[in-house]
Amino acid sequence: MANASTYPVVALMTDFGTGDGDVGVMKGVIAGITPNARIIDITHDIPPQRVASGAWVLASGYRYFPAGTVFVCVVDPGVGSSRGAIALHAGDWFFVGPDNGLFSYILAEQPAHAAVLLSNPAYHLQQVSSTFHGRDIFSPVGAHLAREGAALMRDLGAPLDPATLTRLESVLPVRHGPTIDARIIHVDNFGNLITSIPLTMLPDLFDLRQVQATFPQRGSVIDERRRFFADGPEDGRPFIYGDSSGYIAIAVRNGSAARTLGAAYGDAITFVIA
Amino acid sequence: MANASTYPVVALMTDFGTGDGDVGVMKGVIAGITPNARIIDITHDIPPQRVASGAWVLASGYRYFPAGTVFVCVVDPGVGSSRGAIALHAGDWFFVGPDNGLFSYILAEQPAHAAVLLSNPAYHLQQVSSTFHGRDIFSPVGAHLAREGAALMRDLGAPLDPATLTRLESVLPVRHGPTIDARIIHVDNFGNLITSIPLTMLPDLFDLRQVQATFPQRGSVIDERRRFFADGPEDGRPFIYGDSSGYIAIAVRNGSAARTLGAAYGDAITFVIA
Amino acid sequence: MANASTYPVVALMTDFGTGDGDVGVMKGVIAGITPNARIIDITHDIPPQRVASGAWVLASGYRYFPAGTVFVCVVDPGVGSSRGAIALHAGDWFFVGPDNGLFSYILAEQPAHAAVLLSNPAYHLQQVSSTFHGRDIFSPVGAHLAREGAALMRDLGAPLDPATLTRLESVLPVRHGPTIDARIIHVDNFGNLITSIPLTMLPDLFDLRQVQATFPQRGSVIDERRRFFADGPEDGRPFIYGDSSGYIAIAVRNGSAARTLGAAYGDAITFVIA
Repeated sequence: MANASTYPVVALMTDFGTGDGDVGVMKGVIAGITPNARIIDITHDIPPQRVASGAWVLASGYRYFPAGTVFVCVVDPGVGSSRGAIALHAGDWFFVGPDNGLFSYILAEQPAHAAVLLSNPAYHLQQVSSTFHGRDIFSPVGAHLAREGAALMRDLGAPLDPATLTRLESVLPVRHGPTIDARIIHVDNFGNLITSIPLTMLPDLFDLRQVQATFPQRGSVIDERRRFFADGPEDGRPFIYGDSSGYIAIAVRNGSAARTLGAAYGDAITFVIA
Repeated sequence: MANASTYPVVALMTDFGTGDGDVGVMKGVIAGITPNARIIDITHDIPPQRVASGAWVLASGYRYFPAGTVFVCVVDPGVGSSRGAIALHAGDWFFVGPDNGLFSYILAEQPAHAAVLLSNPAYHLQQVSSTFHGRDIFSPVGAHLAREGAALMRDLGAPLDPATLTRLESVLPVRHGPTIDARIIHVDNFGNLITSIPLTMLPDLFDLRQVQATFPQRGSVIDERRRFFADGPEDGRPFIYGDSSGYIAIAVRNGSAARTLGAAYGDAITFVIA
Repeated sequence: MANASTYPVVALMTDFGTGDGDVGVMKGVIAGITPNARIIDITHDIPPQRVASGAWVLASGYRYFPAGTVFVCVVDPGVGSSRGAIALHAGDWFFVGPDNGLFSYILAEQPAHAAVLLSNPAYHLQQVSSTFHGRDIFSPVGAHLAREGAALMRDLGAPLDPATLTRLESVLPVRHGPTIDARIIHVDNFGNLITSIPLTMLPDLFDLRQVQATFPQRGSVIDERRRFFADGPEDGRPFIYGDSSGYIAIAVRNGSAARTLGAAYGDAITFVIA
């Protein structure tokens, strides 16, 4: 159950990169408050200020972390403005960060037990800057939560109705008959193009007679389906597969679908099934 | 107080990048000597051999780490030459690395309790290479220090007078009347341009009638001041703000000041105040 | 001895990059199974699918990790195909990953005590994808091994004869008389060019009358030898040195040999000694 433990886990996700030392400083703050916390990096390479990418990367992985994990997530172009700083207890996990939509998928997928505005300065650093709440608010709050667990939520600040938290406009694809209009929501390290179509929307992906994906802007048609990369066409034609993140995706065997197709984050893609 | 603990922290900063596995090897060495050490990365992306950048990144963050933290810092173009390998106990922390100016800000900001030349091979790996003291000397020494604390300093080698340690030429800006001549000392992940002007030199930044920053090489003038990013001009004009590192800096809202202004590390910048 | 401990170490090496969160997810899985495991990153920046580079980076560092360390290594273009998923107990360490040659150097350098095919699903995640065995098989197996030690090997699956494991074609250089034909097997973060010639093949590197390295494709000749970087020619001429990885290499003082020489991974290089 989501509670304090001998090895409380704090997982970090930011758009800070790792070149500036800011992530290290956040870990220093956490280690000072909860010396036995295990700190795990999800990634710090979310494209700067792209909240939707942060939301998706978090969504693709949080279920694999132990119950009680505190996720400290900072993609926060509004830092210092009136946007809220929040903690959320949803499912078996805790989420700390700005109220800007970063937790949209979590709120859609998990029961929200409690949410608070981080208005109690007792859990922040003594001096709070206007530009680095990751260090001054989110890390210390996350460290305290990792140590104390759910009981601390009410002390962190004013309670919020989870229903009022900011959600990104749905990225869910639109289906009309045999056609699904979707987007590329992530390009991974191998150049695989992850679409916004959850596998649960096409559970019969490999049983359908035909599946055709088209990038309307450039007309390329992908109609091969494969279960794993090494089974892809040897001539480098792109193919459709079910990505381990839980979404339908496009890959090229031993190559980059992004490069082969000239496709990028945000591109429209249309699937036609038969 | 700076002393051994159940969860001793070793913080690492290098210019090794993370692609070669060298940083992993350093952690393997540390884990073998002090199995309960918590290892925290500050960054490994200091531009190769740029000691001044390492010194600044370290300075911007060390105060946020727990007392007793051992900082193992390796930006070391002189590895294998006669440059000294040192440990330094200053303020509540320990610093291990080459004596090449990497600890200049620490020496300026903290009382130095003790310094030693790492001349005792009992605390090094058995075989010491000429090109990777991070693995062979600094990591094992850091691991031992994290476990034993201040009492170990005298065993590590010959005592040094901290006053004799190498310091970088001051990067402090020069002020004459209303004019401050400074440099860009860091460009962060968002393209924010951090100047060498500490906030303590202009504590009244937001109360002054006028503040004008100019890049003499290209004539661009920045005269907006804002407290946080989301308050920056929507038209993308750069603005002056107080960075969380403790220095005055230039940003562009939802953009990169470095790109907008074509500015880079080391560029001269002049502030005129009124 | 290689056995369970209070602080079992799991070291990770992949070609996943750190931008996607996949590495974080692997750590979440490990933390859920073995909460006290210490997780150390070797690198996640092995060039995508380049098994030979993964094998070399692992080889250059594993000896520096504590006995009992479990190395979870994933450079796995064949994921989901019939390539085996294995665990190997060799020397004082454990290695978990695909049977595709990633452990070639280990098998050449260490006595192999046992190897198993990871055929027992009791040690995998409940749902195993076709594209991310790092998360679904290798991480949970590695976490269990770190906790249980050598005794667990037989439970993980069907025993394998280590002699049958996949090995990469030898990258060992060919020597005929005074000539050694070799390759660049790694380009490090500083642009140093690491050759495939182990120092043990030329133990008298600095005692030979003459050593000439040539890149046949472009004719550049390197004939300076230096023991450390700061001793390199000040005019930027490249020089030969013994790299801390245990291989002969080419560097440029305060510069990049890769850039200076226009050389890259895989390039042929010929040494002539006298």
